[in-house]
Amino acid sequence: MPKLDLDAVPATAGNLYPEPLRAAVRGRSVRRLGPAAGLTDFGVGHVVLAPGAATSQRHWHEGEDEFVVILEGEAVLIEEGSRVTLRAGDCAAFPKGIANGHQIVNESDAPVVLIGVGRIPGTDCHYSDVDLHFSAADRQYRHKDGAPY
Amino acid sequence: MPKLDLDAVPATAGNLYPEPLRAAVRGRSVRRLGPAAGLTDFGVGHVVLAPGAATSQRHWHEGEDEFVVILEGEAVLIEEGSRVTLRAGDCAAFPKGIANGHQIVNESDAPVVLIGVGRIPGTDCHYSDVDLHFSAADRQYRHKDGAPY
Repeated sequence: MPKLDLDAVPATAGNLYPEPLRAAVRGRSVRRLGPAAGLTDFGVGHVVLAPGAATSQRHWHEGEDEFVVILEGEAVLIEEGSRVTLRAGDCAAFPKGIANGHQIVNESDAPVVLIGVGRIPGTDCHYSDVDLHFSAADRQYRHKDGAPY
Repeated sequence: MPKLDLDAVPATAGNLYPEPLRAAVRGRSVRRLGPAAGLTDFGVGHVVLAPGAATSQRHWHEGEDEFVVILEGEAVLIEEGSRVTLRAGDCAAFPKGIANGHQIVNESDAPVVLIGVGRIPGTDCHYSDVDLHFSAADRQYRHKDGAPY
């Protein structure tokens, strides 16, 4: 059925950072709708952020566009030196290669539900605030100096 | 700014079918967020359907996945022999190459707002209910027998 039964799609914690950086995304639940529905051109994540949870550490991708639309709740989009409130119906886009890390944080007392669209990262991902780097070559999280976690 | 100012993105009628098939999508307004935001990996359409309007004639793509999430209102997803109601937060996915044409119609008295994700069609599109075919080779709408409109 093209209409997706969200309850039938497993909700996971999503990609997990090494400790102790994982704490930021505790309370994040991700349903990967693309594989569930048979889509391959792009990925679609149905994301629920419990109060206090973030979509990610603040990051930017060298080679993958990202798009987000808020379905429920109120979140804060954090970038370098900026904080913008996102509410239901608000859209945000993050073109590849723009070196301004972003994250979306639920600072409210109610859940935030959003849809994120992107692709499986095939390029490096840079983290703005923490000592983390995603190396596409071997699909590993490392310290910025290349040392393993 | 990553948060998109929807009012700053031009709202157009979207791709127009030849007459008289255009009537189905009168009342459809499309904001193409991908180009406006600098995204190239995929396209994102912010679509408003006035009462009576459809997203498209019923169709399926040979080679492009599609994804839809409803932001506001109540719409009907029509496929071969099926009608399913879609409400805010509902998601639907249409993997490429599945020969079951789909369209989303606003049969209510209030606007429907939705986000559609896909790619610029690079393959043929088949229309289920009307004498129409999209030929990717020359990017033209034709009759099913190949004759021009």
